[in-house]
Amino acid sequence: MTSTVKGMLATYPADLGAIDQAKLVKCVEECIACAQACTACADACLSEGMVGDLAKCIRTDMDCADICTATAAVLSRHTGYDANISAAILNACAMVCKACADECGRHADMHEHCRLCAEACRSCEQACNELLGALG
Amino acid sequence: MTSTVKGMLATYPADLGAIDQAKLVKCVEECIACAQACTACADACLSEGMVGDLAKCIRTDMDCADICTATAAVLSRHTGYDANISAAILNACAMVCKACADECGRHADMHEHCRLCAEACRSCEQACNELLGALG
Amino acid sequence: MTSTVKGMLATYPADLGAIDQAKLVKCVEECIACAQACTACADACLSEGMVGDLAKCIRTDMDCADICTATAAVLSRHTGYDANISAAILNACAMVCKACADECGRHADMHEHCRLCAEACRSCEQACNELLGALG
Amino acid sequence: MTSTVKGMLATYPADLGAIDQAKLVKCVEECIACAQACTACADACLSEGMVGDLAKCIRTDMDCADICTATAAVLSRHTGYDANISAAILNACAMVCKACADECGRHADMHEHCRLCAEACRSCEQACNELLGALG
Repeated sequence: MTSTVKGMLATYPADLGAIDQAKLVKCVEECIACAQACTACADACLSEGMVGDLAKCIRTDMDCADICTATAAVLSRHTGYDANISAAILNACAMVCKACADECGRHADMHEHCRLCAEACRSCEQACNELLGALG
Repeated sequence: MTSTVKGMLATYPADLGAIDQAKLVKCVEECIACAQACTACADACLSEGMVGDLAKCIRTDMDCADICTATAAVLSRHTGYDANISAAILNACAMVCKACADECGRHADMHEHCRLCAEACRSCEQACNELLGALG
Repeated sequence: MTSTVKGMLATYPADLGAIDQAKLVKCVEECIACAQACTACADACLSEGMVGDLAKCIRTDMDCADICTATAAVLSRHTGYDANISAAILNACAMVCKACADECGRHADMHEHCRLCAEACRSCEQACNELLGALG
Repeated sequence: MTSTVKGMLATYPADLGAIDQAKLVKCVEECIACAQACTACADACLSEGMVGDLAKCIRTDMDCADICTATAAVLSRHTGYDANISAAILNACAMVCKACADECGRHADMHEHCRLCAEACRSCEQACNELLGALG
C-alpha cells in the first residue's frame, strides 16, 4: 500500500505549528489500517461457527473501526487546529484500541484474524499515545 | 422526522444495565441531528462569498460531524458494554460540540446556517454531558 | 427528535437549482434514521441466542448503515452539485436498503428489532427512489 | 504503511467464492488511501488564499472521502456476500473518484495537494473499475 499520508501532509500550504509530523503521519496510517482490520475482523467473527462467543469481540471491533475512522479524519485536518479536540479524540481512540486489542487477544490463539486485528489495535494504541505525548 | 432511536432501544433483547435510557435516546438523537447540521453548515459556508473568513468554521464543522457520527454509533450498541469507551467518546463529542458551537456562534449574526448549527451543537454538547453524568 | 434537516436546507445561501426540496429533506431524514436503526439492529442481533442464524442480517445491517450515512452526507451538500454522484449513491442506497429490508424481514416475526429495522429500511428505500425519480 | 488488508482477507474463515482476491485487496487499499487524501486535500484547500475558487473541489473531496470510506467497509466484509450491493457501491465510488480526479486535476498546476489527490482518485477509480469488471 503506497501511503499518501506523508505526501498530503507535506503539501499542506499553511503553518503546521510545532506538531511532530512523523508521529502524526504514523498515527493517521495506524488509524486507517486499524479501522479496516477491525471491520474485517468483525466480519470474520460473524462467519465463525462459535460466533456466539465472539459477540463482545464483534461489538468492540465495530466501535474501534468507527472511532479510528473519525480520528484519522480529524488528524488529517490542520486548518484552525485545536489541540484539545485532537487530544480528546486521541484519548478515546487509544482507549478503544486497547479494549479491542485485549478482547481480540483473548481469541488470538483460536482465530488468526483476531490475532492480526489485536496487533493492529495495539500498534494503533501506541501511535495514539505517542502522538498524545507529543501534543504537549 | 420519526425517531426510531427509542423503538430500537426498547427492542434490545438483553440487559441494558443501569443506564438512563431517556438520556441515552436523547443523546443519540442529538448526535445524529448535530452531525447532519454540521455537514450542511460546512457546505453552506463553502457557498458564502466570504468563505475565507469561515475556514476554521468549516473545519470544526467537519470534525464535529465525524465525531458525532462515531458517537451515535457507539451509543447505539449495548452488547459487551464498556463504560470507559462510552465515556471517552462522549467526552470527545462534548468537547468538539462546544468548540463548534463557539465557532459557529461567532458567525451566527451574519449566517443563519451558523446560528442553527450552533444551536444543534450546544444541544448535543448538553446531551453528551448529561449522559456522561448519568454513566456514574 | 427535532429535525434540523429542513432548517439547514432553508438557510443554504446559494441557488439549490430545481431539486425537489421536500423529497430531499425526507430522504436525508430517512437515511440518518435508517443508519441508526441498522447499527442498533446489528447490535441487537449480536445479543440474540441464535446469533449464528443472523450473521447475514448483521452484515447487511452494517453495509446499510455505512451506505446510508454516506448518502445522508452527500445529500446534505449542495455546493458544486453533481447529479451523477447523487444518482449513483442514491442507487446504491436504495439497493442496500432493499436488501436489508428483505433480510431483516425474514426475522421480523421472531425479532422485533428486525421488524422495526426492516420498516426503516423500506421507508428509506422508498425515499431514495422518490428522490432519484425527481432528479430527472 | 504496512497493509493489513491482505492479511485480514487471508484469515477469513469461510468461503470467499470466486472473487479476484488481488483486485479486492488493491481496491480496499486504494479506497482507504483515497479517502484520507481527499480529507487532507479538502483541508489544504481551506487554507489556500484563493479558497473561494476551490469550493467545488472541497465539496467533491468530501463526497469522495465519504463514499470511499463506505466502499472500503463494504468490501472488507464477505459474510452473506451480495454482488449487487458491491457493484452498486463500486459504481458510485468509481464515479465520485472520477469527478474528484477531474476537479482536483483542474487545480493540480497551482496546488500540489490537488495534484496528489487527483492521482489518488484516479488510481482508486481504476481499482474500482477493475474490481467491477471482475465481479462478472
